[in-house]
Amino acid sequence: MTALNTDAAPNWIAADWGTTHLRLWAMRGNEVLSKRSCDQGMGRLKPAQFGSVLEAEIAQWGTDWGGIPVVACGMVGSRQGWTEAPYRATPTDPRAQLIRVPDHAARPVYIACGIRQDDPPDVMRGEETQIAGLLAQSPDFDGIVCLPGTHTKWVRLRAGQIERFQSCMTGELFELLAKHSVLRHTLDTDGSDLPAFDAACVEALADPARAYGELFALRAGALLNGFDPNSAASRLSGMLIGWELAATRDLWTGHTVALIGSPKLAALYARALGANGVETQDYPTEPTTLAGLHAAWQTIGACP
Amino acid sequence: MTALNTDAAPNWIAADWGTTHLRLWAMRGNEVLSKRSCDQGMGRLKPAQFGSVLEAEIAQWGTDWGGIPVVACGMVGSRQGWTEAPYRATPTDPRAQLIRVPDHAARPVYIACGIRQDDPPDVMRGEETQIAGLLAQSPDFDGIVCLPGTHTKWVRLRAGQIERFQSCMTGELFELLAKHSVLRHTLDTDGSDLPAFDAACVEALADPARAYGELFALRAGALLNGFDPNSAASRLSGMLIGWELAATRDLWTGHTVALIGSPKLAALYARALGANGVETQDYPTEPTTLAGLHAAWQTIGACP
Repeated sequence: MTALNTDAAPNWIAADWGTTHLRLWAMRGNEVLSKRSCDQGMGRLKPAQFGSVLEAEIAQWGTDWGGIPVVACGMVGSRQGWTEAPYRATPTDPRAQLIRVPDHAARPVYIACGIRQDDPPDVMRGEETQIAGLLAQSPDFDGIVCLPGTHTKWVRLRAGQIERFQSCMTGELFELLAKHSVLRHTLDTDGSDLPAFDAACVEALADPARAYGELFALRAGALLNGFDPNSAASRLSGMLIGWELAATRDLWTGHTVALIGSPKLAALYARALGANGVETQDYPTEPTTLAGLHAAWQTIGACP
Repeated sequence: MTALNTDAAPNWIAADWGTTHLRLWAMRGNEVLSKRSCDQGMGRLKPAQFGSVLEAEIAQWGTDWGGIPVVACGMVGSRQGWTEAPYRATPTDPRAQLIRVPDHAARPVYIACGIRQDDPPDVMRGEETQIAGLLAQSPDFDGIVCLPGTHTKWVRLRAGQIERFQSCMTGELFELLAKHSVLRHTLDTDGSDLPAFDAACVEALADPARAYGELFALRAGALLNGFDPNSAASRLSGMLIGWELAATRDLWTGHTVALIGSPKLAALYARALGANGVETQDYPTEPTTLAGLHAAWQTIGACP
């Protein structure tokens, strides 16, 4: 818990409830009064447990703030979550459409609907709220939004609408290869060799097929030449991001790209895109998510 | 234990000792008298344990066949194995060069050296013996040898020499994605939808970058359209093999490809290559490995 401002009582609570974590912010309008987080993510909870986990976590603030509404985004709204918040189809306004959790007596709880694309099939849940937060800060933004992470999203945003999007499993592939494949003997997961990242990224973007054949060379290079584990990790990161840029080239070419993600990951994407002449803008994750949840909270009167 | 012929005593014992398994064959010349296997692979053994594991496994035959030599290939010869059998550099004759394990009193034990390629870096250990087995059966083979598996090898074999080779992590990637990624919810690991395999393979070979972007579509297609888990598994298999064919195109184009692998996997590669006009020949794993170990055994007089 970080106490930022406890002079005022909150009038709503923001929640980012993903697969692995629950993050809560006590809010007064768009001001953060206090925040907390725990590892009670959707992945470890049964539907009947979400309500008591939420109340127990709020009670950790030393009060139950009974009746104060919660506005949540993320996997809490999936079929395996608390209450399914159905996907809305593209093209659509990313600004949150909320459903209300039935039968939770302590307070009203609202969950943002995810977004689906039917052809090619794709889904997002949580990112739509971050994109709504970007629009709250930059209403006229027109271009591509990239949200790097476990399943990085590339989103074409035009005239306030999500036209289409593309998910890439880059973050998950990096984790699997770096921690669970034969490359785990070879990689230091904290790659910081930027020239190695740059070179691998250029190569993979120019020739993604060849990059596939070079994954095992990271292992062989370590066995034969003692290839440095830090450089190997940077090289794998560059290969996967280069590959992803090749897969999404028709999305980002000629556009400004807004990056919503952790500073470290966003910096790598900015670097890779910058090398291809693409201008990027940074939208840090937390304030952007909160701006999107705030915009959703403001719609509550209109909630079904 | 499968008793095939116990009338005769063996004059040598063949061993394929990999990361996960130890496979033993009691041999008289090139005739298999009996075989057995256990899960005491290199991955779970310390160097000091290999000798007693080997003797205990041989003793399961009801005799210790003391003094009868063992000829082994595979990860038993790696740095983490029993005794390191150093890599030989390409170009080189795949026919085994053996090192003898020091200080094993019960019998002479010989291990085949692996092969390395310095640029681009690559290694094999065990496959060289299978390729030697292919040459024992087809001395004039000129073309490409493909050994599909966890780390599939593509090997240019000319005039009895391995000129160069390329490893692809296709088998390991399939395992990681099918069992440990978000796709695990979506895939039945026994994909048998051959039209789905064919289509994905063609697409990935034609446009490997796009295939990268379509991995997550397997998950989204299951969520939105109830995409069949069996077809999804076949599609992932086709995507990865198509990608691998794109990465190795300069190796297999215009050549005959000899396939050394399990019948199921070899059939998928034969199908994918056949669709590209490439003729394939099957060399089943066990007899080919034994032919290579037999050729190695015949060289023992020349062993250092």
